[in-house]
Amino acid sequence: MNIAIDPTPMSASATDDRQKRRLANLRRLLSPRHVAFVGGQGVAVPIELCQKAGFSGKIWPVNPKYPEIAGLPCVKTLADLPEPPDAVFLAVPREMTVEMVGELARMGAGGAVCYAAGFAEVGEEGKELQKALVAAAGDLAVVGPNCYGLLNYVDGVAMFASGPGWARSKGGVALVMQSGNIALNLTNHQRSVPLSYVITCGNQAVLDIADYIECLADDPLVSVIGLYMEGMPDAARFARAALKALKAGKPVVALKAGNSELGSKLAMSHTSSLAGNDKLYSTLFDRLGVVRVRELSELLETAKLLAISGAPENNRMVVFTCSGGDSLMTADRSAEVGVELPQFPPKTAASLREQLPHFASVSNPLDYNTSLWGHKEQLEKCFETALHGDYDAAMLVIDFPVDDKSGYDACFIATDAVIRAGRIHGKPAFVTSSLSELMPIEARDHVVKSGGTPLQGLQSAIDAFAGAARFGQRRRTLMKPGAIDAALLPDLPPIPTATRLLGEAEGKAALKAQGLTVPENRLVGAADAGLAAAALGFPVVAKLAEPVLAHKTEAGAVKLNLKSADEVKAAVASIGENLARYKPGARPERFLIERMVSDVVAELIVGVKRDPQFGLILVVGAGGILVEMVEDAATLLLPTVREDVAKAVAGLKIAKLLKGYRGKPAGDIDAAVDAVMAIAAYAYAHRDKLVELDVNPLMVLPQGKGVVAVDALVVMGV
Amino acid sequence: MNIAIDPTPMSASATDDRQKRRLANLRRLLSPRHVAFVGGQGVAVPIELCQKAGFSGKIWPVNPKYPEIAGLPCVKTLADLPEPPDAVFLAVPREMTVEMVGELARMGAGGAVCYAAGFAEVGEEGKELQKALVAAAGDLAVVGPNCYGLLNYVDGVAMFASGPGWARSKGGVALVMQSGNIALNLTNHQRSVPLSYVITCGNQAVLDIADYIECLADDPLVSVIGLYMEGMPDAARFARAALKALKAGKPVVALKAGNSELGSKLAMSHTSSLAGNDKLYSTLFDRLGVVRVRELSELLETAKLLAISGAPENNRMVVFTCSGGDSLMTADRSAEVGVELPQFPPKTAASLREQLPHFASVSNPLDYNTSLWGHKEQLEKCFETALHGDYDAAMLVIDFPVDDKSGYDACFIATDAVIRAGRIHGKPAFVTSSLSELMPIEARDHVVKSGGTPLQGLQSAIDAFAGAARFGQRRRTLMKPGAIDAALLPDLPPIPTATRLLGEAEGKAALKAQGLTVPENRLVGAADAGLAAAALGFPVVAKLAEPVLAHKTEAGAVKLNLKSADEVKAAVASIGENLARYKPGARPERFLIERMVSDVVAELIVGVKRDPQFGLILVVGAGGILVEMVEDAATLLLPTVREDVAKAVAGLKIAKLLKGYRGKPAGDIDAAVDAVMAIAAYAYAHRDKLVELDVNPLMVLPQGKGVVAVDALVVMGV
Repeated sequence: MNIAIDPTPMSASATDDRQKRRLANLRRLLSPRHVAFVGGQGVAVPIELCQKAGFSGKIWPVNPKYPEIAGLPCVKTLADLPEPPDAVFLAVPREMTVEMVGELARMGAGGAVCYAAGFAEVGEEGKELQKALVAAAGDLAVVGPNCYGLLNYVDGVAMFASGPGWARSKGGVALVMQSGNIALNLTNHQRSVPLSYVITCGNQAVLDIADYIECLADDPLVSVIGLYMEGMPDAARFARAALKALKAGKPVVALKAGNSELGSKLAMSHTSSLAGNDKLYSTLFDRLGVVRVRELSELLETAKLLAISGAPENNRMVVFTCSGGDSLMTADRSAEVGVELPQFPPKTAASLREQLPHFASVSNPLDYNTSLWGHKEQLEKCFETALHGDYDAAMLVIDFPVDDKSGYDACFIATDAVIRAGRIHGKPAFVTSSLSELMPIEARDHVVKSGGTPLQGLQSAIDAFAGAARFGQRRRTLMKPGAIDAALLPDLPPIPTATRLLGEAEGKAALKAQGLTVPENRLVGAADAGLAAAALGFPVVAKLAEPVLAHKTEAGAVKLNLKSADEVKAAVASIGENLARYKPGARPERFLIERMVSDVVAELIVGVKRDPQFGLILVVGAGGILVEMVEDAATLLLPTVREDVAKAVAGLKIAKLLKGYRGKPAGDIDAAVDAVMAIAAYAYAHRDKLVELDVNPLMVLPQGKGVVAVDALVVMGV
Repeated sequence: MNIAIDPTPMSASATDDRQKRRLANLRRLLSPRHVAFVGGQGVAVPIELCQKAGFSGKIWPVNPKYPEIAGLPCVKTLADLPEPPDAVFLAVPREMTVEMVGELARMGAGGAVCYAAGFAEVGEEGKELQKALVAAAGDLAVVGPNCYGLLNYVDGVAMFASGPGWARSKGGVALVMQSGNIALNLTNHQRSVPLSYVITCGNQAVLDIADYIECLADDPLVSVIGLYMEGMPDAARFARAALKALKAGKPVVALKAGNSELGSKLAMSHTSSLAGNDKLYSTLFDRLGVVRVRELSELLETAKLLAISGAPENNRMVVFTCSGGDSLMTADRSAEVGVELPQFPPKTAASLREQLPHFASVSNPLDYNTSLWGHKEQLEKCFETALHGDYDAAMLVIDFPVDDKSGYDACFIATDAVIRAGRIHGKPAFVTSSLSELMPIEARDHVVKSGGTPLQGLQSAIDAFAGAARFGQRRRTLMKPGAIDAALLPDLPPIPTATRLLGEAEGKAALKAQGLTVPENRLVGAADAGLAAAALGFPVVAKLAEPVLAHKTEAGAVKLNLKSADEVKAAVASIGENLARYKPGARPERFLIERMVSDVVAELIVGVKRDPQFGLILVVGAGGILVEMVEDAATLLLPTVREDVAKAVAGLKIAKLLKGYRGKPAGDIDAAVDAVMAIAAYAYAHRDKLVELDVNPLMVLPQGKGVVAVDALVVMGV
């Protein structure tokens, strides 16, 4: 599939109103009372699928030539339809697609799925046609163009170009896919994922992923939203939609592709998507509680777990295996992906020791031993006992041989026992096969009917639980009063092209007003430099004050550790000479004389950059050589909250130094976090104009002594 | 399964002879002419499996009470057997197992699979019994005890406690598993992995994983060896076996579990295995060309790829998809795991551009576009053209819907075309489904028959190719003259318990003799310190020479940058006082006066430790704060070669500094590598006695100026 995005800017209020009407129409399109299929005999495929799936609404084939398609009489033209259709599948050439979209918009139809290709994905000529399509769409909910279509697995609606896998459901996971082929493949899963909708978003000419999420967040048929995405033009819109879903208790699970250098290039050519920085996507997803996955199987397993068992409160699991090997692999993977396997409390352990053979080792994961195999009461008691601990879920690892089903009944005794134990303790229970294929349909059906989630592949299952737990944890945080509003991202105007570099004194003064500590300083001419220094107290630093050099240190325009008025005089003279070398003819007017900061525990850098997709990006990292050599930095999007800043600082490698390293004094971490918050607040307050901000270094002093921003660079739009 | 290792020490030559006879008997056991099944009616299961599988040798049920089992007349006792059996499956109680093993050894049988549990895995009493078993075994090849048994998929031999998955094969992957349950599950794979043997090694009382590898390396039915292992008592033996397999062109693919803290603890309780440091296993595996995998599915996919397509020369792949999404995910994963996707050379690209629609983007991975779908000649031409580049393999990504096989013929046109293109260019071809389950048996059979490897799961397939390519690359390196011998590990005596800390002067002199540069120095009494310093030239360093303090710097027994005889005198006096504080009553006799090293680009540390499993472990890392804060260190096993040391140093984060950082001078990297080699040579020469060695810091001077080992600590057994 080649698909492309062409966002059409509109005035804010007009956009809002239209948006509301389009989303209402998308609602109609997703669960239609009537569907018109416009096209040749090819539309027989989706029509027959609707019939087979038991769609109870009206189906209208539209064709001027054929008397009937798929056994249904054809309506000659759109104008001949008995009423404006809720949904239309347009399988007609691209020019006719544009015309018909216009006609449908005028007659008040709900939405149209535009199958035709040849729009923005094919170059300039196609882009013009796509603009015409957008213009024609009006309030119509338009899916595509250049897409496979959409499926509603609950009502039995197929507006889809190809024969998908089909299993009627009562709702569950909605898949929104920026690739038709991937969507098609996922419909063929053999994993008992209860699907509600599959939407392939194609070129996203009119509706984009954020729109679909927003609509699905309100839909009672949807419990989980699964995404395959290559790019995202606007983090703020995405954030609003994802947080709406989170508020509604609906996890968003996302596979974002195009993370590598080559992948990112391909995304640009395939979908015109600015794939952007992988780390920024992770930062954004973490902020919003979006569960990021790396493989399609993980997308399905995670979505399935969340749809069937719901989100766990936290990440603590008790695991039962009948193999030491499965226990080891469970322990290994859990440690890697952040699943906790708390050991049994003494009373529980003692009881388990009584229930199991004397040589069994009682630990979590519990190799419950084949001696209990097939003994219903013993297994039930063992599993129920084990859950008397601080656990959020129970998992049984068990494989079902595909070619020999004779042992399934004994297996089901174990699966039923773990699900029962989960039910007694009010915790979700999972039944996992170590190889994905060793959980055939009979086993999956049994587990689902008993109230558990079948998971396929040991490591995938642990990954799925880890992701679900991250959602559960993040949701708890975000459901605190005000937290969701604080997690929203601002809509920002385009990045200013004309900019101004603030003088260091000016920049520091502005940041100081926001609460950041800067060195005591004087802004003086060369003649007054010595006196000013003496007034401040030695040692001092002398810097060129004019913002004519971005890299002052490298240009020799910063002189450190000056211990006397004479040294200060010599320093300002030398700065003047150096300036003249870089900017011939330039003469320095003013110098910044500052108290030298000493007694430094560690240096941090704090930077803010403006990005067209993600808005304001704050980076906090180790200063000096560390940050560049080991990339010791954390990324946050603005606005941010103190808790997240504290977590970011605590997660740095340099945090060891800040906590007091090898007997050295600890740094003032609280003050460092305050300083980052002050910088963030300044940047956010000036978000419409700020282009770049760098505090480098931010000197962290010993505990209780605060921090000092020694240098600051601010670039503002003018 | 609970299994345990109990290694029995023997004299070297006796061990060698016995080892040879046991391996010859293991050969008989693996491909037996006759199999005796000793036990009750339960042995009917494996006997019937042998019959069903078409085993052409003799089958002798042995039972004193039953007239027949599985339709075959019973032999009453082992003594009544017509000849010493090549293979015996012992399903009798544990005490009887020990007796019969002795009887079989005496009668000259080949080998016995001991199914009984209750040995070392159940504690002290079982350990005694296991010792008796080992003593009884003599030259007999004993598998287990406490194991599921073994399977030979070529000859149709099942000596297995449970009904495994079965598909007769002509040879291929041998699985050696330290978990019976995992082995059983793997036999049920739905992945077209051609299996030759499955061996569950149980408690490894007599034969261990290294023995099995050594035997399988010679076996013509085996092309790949797959391992599940929890621990490994002796890296040297494992290395010999793995290198023998590599020399024979047989890749070893290993899933090593017990890497996490909890996993490691569980390994100890489950199999008495010292799971050891995860990093050391990776170091060992890299050295030996053992392909490390993290999941059972990856183990199977990697082994399958290697068994069917062989090891690729290198890591460059051309990939065909019919979805931009699959291309992106391929690019992303390839970048993560080190698979190269070289772009097409201009001529190839031009030809592809002619063959594909104008809007297709011609890049690798190639989204070859659905317009070619089903067109045999066009697809063949397109794939054949694309392989005109520097590629080691071709992969087609395609999914087969399980519930609708109507489109398979069109799919097969594409799979055949890519396999044909591979054949023309002499490269392996893989056909990969994006979801593991969307490659059903019909599709796998078709691909295998056509000469390709079906791979299941997009990311797993890329991981499998990456692993296979690492093997191919490493094998090329190791097949150079002398390389395999250099990669072997020495057999070391036990770590000395009585040790001596060498004085710094003594340690440095020893290392200097091996070629390491140390500072020019004098060993003097307090009275001569000033004169000695003047003779060396200021500035100097003064240190306590006696090896009474391990951490001299912290104890104030090192004084840096002394610029005059007076400063030196004061320094030695102060050192004396500090010593007295740490060791009341102690008086320093001698001091080490050294030229102070200046002009340092970077500090390294080089350490060697002796480990009971892995032997001599060399760690080279960034010195000072960096190594501890960011763990910037690489691990090597000794002996080592210059190439590997150079790679280790180049892979450090501090390598940026060594290469000349931010305009600073580059360090003398060659000299640093030489120094590490000298330290390694010293350690290896003293391998029987060396316990610990630390050079910290090793000062790296500017290019051409060498390096200096400023401090050295050596601990030797006495």
